[in-house]
Amino acid sequence: MTDSEKFRDAMWRLGAAVNIITTDGAAGRHGITASAVCRLSDDPAAVLLSVNRSGQMHGVLRANRKLCINVLGGEHEELSNNFASRRLEASERFGMAAWEEMENGTPALVGALCSLGCRVDTISETGTHSVFVCHVEEIRFGPAQSGLMHFGRRYHRLAIPEAA
Amino acid sequence: MTDSEKFRDAMWRLGAAVNIITTDGAAGRHGITASAVCRLSDDPAAVLLSVNRSGQMHGVLRANRKLCINVLGGEHEELSNNFASRRLEASERFGMAAWEEMENGTPALVGALCSLGCRVDTISETGTHSVFVCHVEEIRFGPAQSGLMHFGRRYHRLAIPEAA
Repeated sequence: MTDSEKFRDAMWRLGAAVNIITTDGAAGRHGITASAVCRLSDDPAAVLLSVNRSGQMHGVLRANRKLCINVLGGEHEELSNNFASRRLEASERFGMAAWEEMENGTPALVGALCSLGCRVDTISETGTHSVFVCHVEEIRFGPAQSGLMHFGRRYHRLAIPEAA
Repeated sequence: MTDSEKFRDAMWRLGAAVNIITTDGAAGRHGITASAVCRLSDDPAAVLLSVNRSGQMHGVLRANRKLCINVLGGEHEELSNNFASRRLEASERFGMAAWEEMENGTPALVGALCSLGCRVDTISETGTHSVFVCHVEEIRFGPAQSGLMHFGRRYHRLAIPEAA
């Protein structure tokens, strides 16, 4: 097993929520599936997002400097695959679901578990990826009753506990 | 609902793996439970970790600049609670499980899903937390057959799929 295979095997053991990251602005509208999102600061409310520098999304996000993190519900498996597919253009991806607009003009997935409208604060490069520090300016909750997780190279659905 | 309550409610919708982060070195041995870990770069292999600046771990990690990320198995719920408890000193926390040593001298949890021995590359502050960019230098896989996730203010176990 090479070092990079070993790292990938370690990473599928680190389960994560699946999200669709969207942006819109002067550099255009785009969206990707991403699980490398994590909580950063409570005050100000901020999250981290890691994006591959070789993909189209990286340049678009750098230019627009605003985004929406759509946390997916258990029923969004196919949508997740579509937003991860290199064969689909942005217009085809967005055509597969219903969207509304966040206050910052980025697309919010109708029916997401929640949508976070963010402003990009800082961007720093490490190896193949960049880290975007995202300040959360708007939060909307959707009707989804379960979350979509990725673990062990598979999707999993987690139901929201009644007392949550 | 205040803005900070709304942010907390959004964050429990963002499911995440549960990990115990350990360190050892000139500033001493310490460990905390953390779910704010995410994949960063494949080459070099790197992950991100967000740590609260008000806790003891922050200063210890800043000084030691090395750590071990122990990805927890489904059976580690109680251990996760203990490493998150402010009432327990480091020595009490470590006394509750068996440990071996990573090559960088940090404690690896015996029976973890996997353990990542890391060197801290950069540290940057955002609000209440700091982001640690961690270069992964060593990976060990353990015998656990499930992962421990946090979602909807509760723990969940995800079994490793047979074909993973």
